[in-house]
Amino acid sequence: MTSLPPSVAGAENLTSPDVGLLRIDHVGIAVADLDEALAFYADNFGLRCVHEETNEEQGVREAMLAVGDGDGPRLQLLAPSRPDSAIAKFLDRTGPGLQQLAYTVADVEAASSALRSRGLRLLYDTPRRGTAGSLINFVHPKDAGGVLVELVQPVSPSDESS
Amino acid sequence: MTSLPPSVAGAENLTSPDVGLLRIDHVGIAVADLDEALAFYADNFGLRCVHEETNEEQGVREAMLAVGDGDGPRLQLLAPSRPDSAIAKFLDRTGPGLQQLAYTVADVEAASSALRSRGLRLLYDTPRRGTAGSLINFVHPKDAGGVLVELVQPVSPSDESS
Repeated sequence: MTSLPPSVAGAENLTSPDVGLLRIDHVGIAVADLDEALAFYADNFGLRCVHEETNEEQGVREAMLAVGDGDGPRLQLLAPSRPDSAIAKFLDRTGPGLQQLAYTVADVEAASSALRSRGLRLLYDTPRRGTAGSLINFVHPKDAGGVLVELVQPVSPSDESS
Repeated sequence: MTSLPPSVAGAENLTSPDVGLLRIDHVGIAVADLDEALAFYADNFGLRCVHEETNEEQGVREAMLAVGDGDGPRLQLLAPSRPDSAIAKFLDRTGPGLQQLAYTVADVEAASSALRSRGLRLLYDTPRRGTAGSLINFVHPKDAGGVLVELVQPVSPSDESS
């Protein structure tokens, strides 16, 4: 419920200033084996790996693939690095396939707080470390129409150099 | 199997010239009710509807949502317009959530042919009509790691004016 007319609520800013979704950051795909998946995407779709890391906290081996000129959102391939990880459980339950949709935000704490104020549950009380030193949180899929929504605050250049 | 060294196969062009994935076009999300979903995305994520249509052939009511400045890939909300549609079956089987990943291509016939030559099955023998007069085809999810991959050839300006 809002008293704002639609023209005020939506016309000036394409995204809500409260949540601040800047763009799609990446689309995450669960895969059983990262190396096999990288070969599959390279051979069949011509997509190039631009980043690879293991996130021990998340229990995931992951790779980022660029599409086209590489300026847009990336594909993120996610493989389990241990059997009790969220991605291992996803594979057991659902099989390989689309697993998450991530948006870039300038401030993950502010975005999380804005979503909590609307009644949406976040998976973490405080942001955790995501890909390439980013800060992340997730909206519970049950509160987001069955979609696991990730919020990504990229590492700032000053953090990167420290 | 290829005789090209990796530097030739991947370094010059970020995408394979054969398949020609230009960018992520949209991410498709299955929803039970389009109007409820549009309200949910506007109220909670501040995302704005920029296009809406019913595709009778696909049996889908759909909407495109812009993220941020609107230049990047869009969210596509997909609701069934009839109970025997692919999206109705997806909802019955899987529930609401991430349903497809679409790439923009310049020539959907050429892209389909390039993928078939690699042994991947396409859902249609010839392209069908997608959102806003585009031409589309889909890679069978069983041949793409569980992901329903859509290829989208946008309508050309000359087609649009005719």
